[in-house]
Amino acid sequence: MASPRMSCGKNGNPDETNALLIPCSLHKHSISAPHATQVNLRMLAAPMNPADVNQIQGVYPSKPPFQSALGNAEPAAVGGNEGAFEVLSTGAGVKNLSKGDWVIMKQTGQGTWRTHAQLDESQLIKIENKDGLTPLQVGTVSVNPVTAYRMMRDFCEWDWMRAGEEWMIQNGANSGVGRAAIQFGREWGIKTLNVVRQRKTPEETEALKKELKELGATVVITEEEMMTGNFRDMVHEYTRQGREPIRLALNCVGGKNATALAKTLAPDSHMVTYGAMSKQPVALPSGLLIFKNLSFDGFWVSKWGDKNPAMKENTIKDVLQMTRSGKFQDIPVDNVEWNWNTEGPVLSESVQGTLGGYRSGKGVFTFTGGDE
Amino acid sequence: MASPRMSCGKNGNPDETNALLIPCSLHKHSISAPHATQVNLRMLAAPMNPADVNQIQGVYPSKPPFQSALGNAEPAAVGGNEGAFEVLSTGAGVKNLSKGDWVIMKQTGQGTWRTHAQLDESQLIKIENKDGLTPLQVGTVSVNPVTAYRMMRDFCEWDWMRAGEEWMIQNGANSGVGRAAIQFGREWGIKTLNVVRQRKTPEETEALKKELKELGATVVITEEEMMTGNFRDMVHEYTRQGREPIRLALNCVGGKNATALAKTLAPDSHMVTYGAMSKQPVALPSGLLIFKNLSFDGFWVSKWGDKNPAMKENTIKDVLQMTRSGKFQDIPVDNVEWNWNTEGPVLSESVQGTLGGYRSGKGVFTFTGGDE
Repeated sequence: MASPRMSCGKNGNPDETNALLIPCSLHKHSISAPHATQVNLRMLAAPMNPADVNQIQGVYPSKPPFQSALGNAEPAAVGGNEGAFEVLSTGAGVKNLSKGDWVIMKQTGQGTWRTHAQLDESQLIKIENKDGLTPLQVGTVSVNPVTAYRMMRDFCEWDWMRAGEEWMIQNGANSGVGRAAIQFGREWGIKTLNVVRQRKTPEETEALKKELKELGATVVITEEEMMTGNFRDMVHEYTRQGREPIRLALNCVGGKNATALAKTLAPDSHMVTYGAMSKQPVALPSGLLIFKNLSFDGFWVSKWGDKNPAMKENTIKDVLQMTRSGKFQDIPVDNVEWNWNTEGPVLSESVQGTLGGYRSGKGVFTFTGGDE
Repeated sequence: MASPRMSCGKNGNPDETNALLIPCSLHKHSISAPHATQVNLRMLAAPMNPADVNQIQGVYPSKPPFQSALGNAEPAAVGGNEGAFEVLSTGAGVKNLSKGDWVIMKQTGQGTWRTHAQLDESQLIKIENKDGLTPLQVGTVSVNPVTAYRMMRDFCEWDWMRAGEEWMIQNGANSGVGRAAIQFGREWGIKTLNVVRQRKTPEETEALKKELKELGATVVITEEEMMTGNFRDMVHEYTRQGREPIRLALNCVGGKNATALAKTLAPDSHMVTYGAMSKQPVALPSGLLIFKNLSFDGFWVSKWGDKNPAMKENTIKDVLQMTRSGKFQDIPVDNVEWNWNTEGPVLSESVQGTLGGYRSGKGVFTFTGGDE
């Protein structure tokens, strides 16, 4: 069985760790029949998340393991950190998986931008009751929705007796994490104040606001509206003159945007940073720390998941259950189909477009070429 | 009984909350004999802390209660937030205090820059076993040492099995809080990396380093030394190539100094901000939040003490016990004596000198005029 992958070489120098742009190429190799506890897999859908691209750019602290066991001349790593796979065949020692099962990878960093893979059973999570789920839903559940879910549950002691009267605020509300947070807020009774970047035209901005409101957003404003002088008054009005406190901020932008978010928070609240799209540090007026007793933390789903594998599985199960019951919508997708004739540069361009922000939806690889 | 106080008027407008500099003046009024649960007090020693001055400048979120019950024409507040007082006389309903007892005020914001005061017994903490303590020790225990103590105990889960092998880092190490932290570190087995501002001459800088080391500081460096390129290597060496993690940072400066502190921290550590001497916000590279999982909090002893009165009393008792047994040294003092003939501007100048930073010691008011 042949398996093309998007592999990222290390500029020929396996000791080089700070390369700014690592060349990507399409690589083809053979996969043998599975031995012992090995499982052969076929990719169903694998998304391109911003962190995947940062990883290739070399600006991400974790790197996928570089290897030369894939029939490649130089050590290389496979891009991508999540995806849905179907079991094609299993080794004699495999206990809990069989042909036709759907799985996702237990940990990030395994490389999912590939048509086929061979992994050990211990590295895989079986998706129970896959009926009623699509490959897209399964392939995009483990990074963004889990990030939103844990940030909303683990950094704020919500007063559940006051469901519907407490708020969170977030920037990057149109992202995968942002859209997930909006929907969890709607289901859990947490009002959401959502900040998005202004689109190219007022009509597009209005359309995005409408879309996020239909998803469950309480309020959607643009970054530009947040930065105007009367944002404070707007917040005062949304929150019924402060009677409904904003108790959590989710930040993936940084810079002045993050500072503006922090200023809306009620005393003793938390801001959690999970991204830095503006590449600016988070600037915190000391008074917010000292006198308002705000806390500033970060969240990295890869590390969290490695430390809390059981909680990660439970979170995924909960999100997929919400998905089955129609309470969690699919993210908009820009499908990148891929077959045996697709050229490497076409796939590379798709990867590079991920950080642009104006893609009509999340880029998702699907392979339509069948086995060869 | 007459009582001069340093009172701070509100520019004549009791609704004005953002006055940048509130004029201070010396005010004299009479205190009646104590009724019911009232206690008449004589001031023994009251320090000038930086926050007291910020409060007068109007840049502090809490203001002492303005009142017109002190024989003054316009509403005014009394400066100062801590001090040692001696009981002169007690009302018939007072249960646990008697003449000659020493007390401190339970809460900040009561006004301590006064020769005499009349307060309710419920507002006072009695100092047990005052023998072996000085007015200075009692009058300076409730703000700075309590701040250092709680920041070191409540924001970091030290591995006490590794006493002597874990570090904290702090700027403003020469401050009241800084000196307290150094001594607690020495007693509790927490190594301290201390950052101070360079003095006017190399000799003065060396003398300060020596002084702090004698107090128990493990390492003392200047801000300038911290900002050089090889600080990272220096830290690597101090911490035995990272085998002894720096798990806590205490920050009262902000700006780049705070960022440099944060960068030395081991993963999952905390930085606590309790001051902002540089007036610059704390700038946090997002990577420290996300990938190193650092947490950034603030600490405000006034609010903490109001919420945790019992723990505050216990902390004070513990520090005073350390003081009695010679394990907690007095802060260096610049004594400002005061009697019936002292002019108001002389006292005002002392207050204004507090933020300069090069005073030979903490400014402390003592009244030498006796009763009138």
